[in-house]
Amino acid sequence: MSGSGSRIIVALDPPDDVNVVDWCLSIIGETRDLVAGYKIGLPLLVRLDSINELSLLARAMGDGLLRIVDLKLADIGDVMVSSIKPFIHYGFNYFIAHSFIGCRDGLGVLNSFLRENNAWLITVVSMSHRGSVEVMDSIVDRLLEVSVNVGAWGVVAPATRPEIIRFVRKHIGSRARILSPGIGPQGARPGDALMAGADYEIIGRMITRNSGPRHVVKEINKIHESLLGEG
Amino acid sequence: MSGSGSRIIVALDPPDDVNVVDWCLSIIGETRDLVAGYKIGLPLLVRLDSINELSLLARAMGDGLLRIVDLKLADIGDVMVSSIKPFIHYGFNYFIAHSFIGCRDGLGVLNSFLRENNAWLITVVSMSHRGSVEVMDSIVDRLLEVSVNVGAWGVVAPATRPEIIRFVRKHIGSRARILSPGIGPQGARPGDALMAGADYEIIGRMITRNSGPRHVVKEINKIHESLLGEG
Repeated sequence: MSGSGSRIIVALDPPDDVNVVDWCLSIIGETRDLVAGYKIGLPLLVRLDSINELSLLARAMGDGLLRIVDLKLADIGDVMVSSIKPFIHYGFNYFIAHSFIGCRDGLGVLNSFLRENNAWLITVVSMSHRGSVEVMDSIVDRLLEVSVNVGAWGVVAPATRPEIIRFVRKHIGSRARILSPGIGPQGARPGDALMAGADYEIIGRMITRNSGPRHVVKEINKIHESLLGEG
Repeated sequence: MSGSGSRIIVALDPPDDVNVVDWCLSIIGETRDLVAGYKIGLPLLVRLDSINELSLLARAMGDGLLRIVDLKLADIGDVMVSSIKPFIHYGFNYFIAHSFIGCRDGLGVLNSFLRENNAWLITVVSMSHRGSVEVMDSIVDRLLEVSVNVGAWGVVAPATRPEIIRFVRKHIGSRARILSPGIGPQGARPGDALMAGADYEIIGRMITRNSGPRHVVKEINKIHESLLGEG
């Protein structure tokens, strides 16, 4: 399976004892022809020596891949726009925000800014941890409605609860992609989310903490191909 | 009114065309003996030349004040903890996160880490923008329940909707402080939130974009004193 056909998004969550840029560049270098994209987040951002190191990461990923910034944005629109400007500047093009905050003066402002900059919005409608059932999972329908209203490119729903993925797919049809975290240490197996209706599986430690990331990516691509009948 | 008696938290949201550290240090220098604390967020963070500049800001604020980091955290517990470590290290001691992500493997993990580090959790139960009514404001009771269960030091509710502040105060009693943004350009007047039951008003542009921040802070303190009968 080529990179463009892969369903894997690699979450670049660095361990404690590394230079984060070198660590990311090494993983990217080993896997970029075999995956759909990469996701970076706050734990990486706060460990950069300088914000312009983002440029090195985006360039290493290359133009054809999803270059996702996962800050779980959940603020008023103007604040979210100010927060992502450097990431846009340095070449990232997909941004994850929470549906919870609503459209007006919120996601609507963010999405307009993204579209003007050839970038795309991905919204969270459910999460992989247990706390997600305390509030979010009981109002997934309303979070989906916000996501559809704002015109999100994709939504995030957890591989750890495939019934949520099925619910999301049923309600959004083909209007948005589904991206699923929670594979590996959090409990789901590669392929679980795809079989429930997801388009991409976001996989971190299972790939990045393995001594042979390229090998693991190939194995997971094979599992995906076999499950989807694309082998 | 001394700094310790003030109800003002200054939101340090820098304009586009400044060196953000110099700008913050100037505002802090002019106001720190007259306010309760300061709040920084993502738009400031992404414009630092280096993360260790946080140390300059925390030291300028000084030990007696609230040094609040407002990343609107809304991720799984381990990710939130990894994201705030540098802020703890450099001397910030209050952290804002969203109630809607729930306690288990979420806010519970974050709050345990904060308490081990002599830092405190503040949770968002409602926001100042119009999108807040689309989802959040209809489940404020549940968001409050999460906040109380996790033992939040304070909760955020908007000055723009005083009926929400009154509702929050009625339900949490004296178990948590209420901090209210939305004063100035967003529509509320200084004192509106305090009169509805808030403990602190978070004020940004009205102070920081004025040519005389110290003068404005004094004027707002006077309004607060007069309304609260502490004059």
